[in-house]
Amino acid sequence: MLPNRAELREVGPRDGLQAEAPIPPEERIRLVEALLAAGVVRIELGSFVSPRAVPSMAGSDEVFAAIPPRPGVTRAALVPNELGARHALASGCDELTVTVSVSPGYNERNVRMTVAESVQQIEAVCALAANASVPTDAVVSCCFGSPYEGDVAPRAVRALVDQLTGAGATRATLADTTGMATPRRIGEVLDEVGTDVGLHLHETRGTGLVNLYTGLLAGVRRFDCSVGGLGGSPFATGSAGNVATEEVVAMLDDLDVATGIDVGKMIEAALLAEELLGHPVPSRVAHAGSRDRLATG
Amino acid sequence: MLPNRAELREVGPRDGLQAEAPIPPEERIRLVEALLAAGVVRIELGSFVSPRAVPSMAGSDEVFAAIPPRPGVTRAALVPNELGARHALASGCDELTVTVSVSPGYNERNVRMTVAESVQQIEAVCALAANASVPTDAVVSCCFGSPYEGDVAPRAVRALVDQLTGAGATRATLADTTGMATPRRIGEVLDEVGTDVGLHLHETRGTGLVNLYTGLLAGVRRFDCSVGGLGGSPFATGSAGNVATEEVVAMLDDLDVATGIDVGKMIEAALLAEELLGHPVPSRVAHAGSRDRLATG
Repeated sequence: MLPNRAELREVGPRDGLQAEAPIPPEERIRLVEALLAAGVVRIELGSFVSPRAVPSMAGSDEVFAAIPPRPGVTRAALVPNELGARHALASGCDELTVTVSVSPGYNERNVRMTVAESVQQIEAVCALAANASVPTDAVVSCCFGSPYEGDVAPRAVRALVDQLTGAGATRATLADTTGMATPRRIGEVLDEVGTDVGLHLHETRGTGLVNLYTGLLAGVRRFDCSVGGLGGSPFATGSAGNVATEEVVAMLDDLDVATGIDVGKMIEAALLAEELLGHPVPSRVAHAGSRDRLATG
Repeated sequence: MLPNRAELREVGPRDGLQAEAPIPPEERIRLVEALLAAGVVRIELGSFVSPRAVPSMAGSDEVFAAIPPRPGVTRAALVPNELGARHALASGCDELTVTVSVSPGYNERNVRMTVAESVQQIEAVCALAANASVPTDAVVSCCFGSPYEGDVAPRAVRALVDQLTGAGATRATLADTTGMATPRRIGEVLDEVGTDVGLHLHETRGTGLVNLYTGLLAGVRRFDCSVGGLGGSPFATGSAGNVATEEVVAMLDDLDVATGIDVGKMIEAALLAEELLGHPVPSRVAHAGSRDRLATG
């Protein structure tokens, strides 16, 4: 059964832009404003990481300063460690995002730590966040398969989610970081972990929307998506972007699943992202329009 | 419930290539041979239309001559009228494909005929085909929405399918020509028409695979797809290609739905198509590989 509503977390300004050549904070702020104008209420504004490691996220504090708190809007910041968490909390973010992979090989290459070391870091971050009354969302990467170890046991995902909750995470998001999920894998993992999780899906193999739809039918109500379909992991073979926000909204509109987002304005935001980045975004709805756009000729 | 098997009809050499700059018959034959080597058993080899109207389909008779009948393989030809049907039957094809749109505006622009005139043509083609003991598949375009009239009533699709069967068509395929289908529209049309139909789906708005999966769950067992995701209607706003054969096979492999097609060889065929056309194909699996392709680094 489809729900009446689903919550979309916009990750474009962080996950989407981090893999791109840097664009200045003032342009990222323009994009964020366009996303908020489209009706986005949960959004990752940036990350507090070393600007040497991720140059395109430099100046995330400026983005937070320019987008002050507003009622009904959750402004999240990704942080890799305690130092990042201190900066993010000082910037006034409403939520922290932390990541760890259920795939040891992926975690090692992504953050040069063992999974256990990452969980320890997350525990320290969650303590700081709790102290500031800020919730922490733990994003678990490679939940549906890893390019290093292949298939991932749903039980391993559950064990890691339990550990993260034990470490203080407020909630968990299961990520298909390298696009290895299929409806079967989504079903198997949700059977084990339950549906009170977010799903973070990629279009690496074109299965983003079918996986999202499968999650929705199974009972999941929170989904990450990225304006224009921007994003993609630098550590994945032939990686491609996140599910595109405007493609998700266009489909959910026709399924009568409310998101609060205006698809036309979201398409405008995707076209603004193209303009700022200087290259086309992968989203098809950004170019074709939603299904109610009729031919004029 | 998912079935054990699904039948994929490969439309790349016809629907895929017709929108491309012409490549010579000998190169199309190379592509067809690669597709057959991958395990394709139902394939549109070309169309018998005016070479002035569709230059990239010129020499379809040469393609048929080079790919003789073989047991277990159905070689189809698209024909627009009786003249085309005579040529196609003379070439020794195993099946005819005819098209008509349930959208009057689309039919008018595509073939400059009313829907009734198209059905009359199809009746004449079916008579010729029946005389030669060759089956005819009627592909009905815009079944899930039209860029000219917007939403399409499922009852109108059923009425046209009934007319076509009455006119002698052996079977019908419902096409989402301009990518307006969603799982909801697929469900509504199949509820009305039944599931003994083929589905011909496009990725114009990224919903190709979710629509295919929805059709499969509902009971449909025949799907059109195109190597590399080639194709797309010239009469559609922001049109994009057919569902990519290798993306469908990659997903169905993981769902344990057999297609008889080897995904690795299908990816090779998609890369051959890229080489012959001189530009990248839209398929993501062609570049990312199937989900069992692990990282080497």
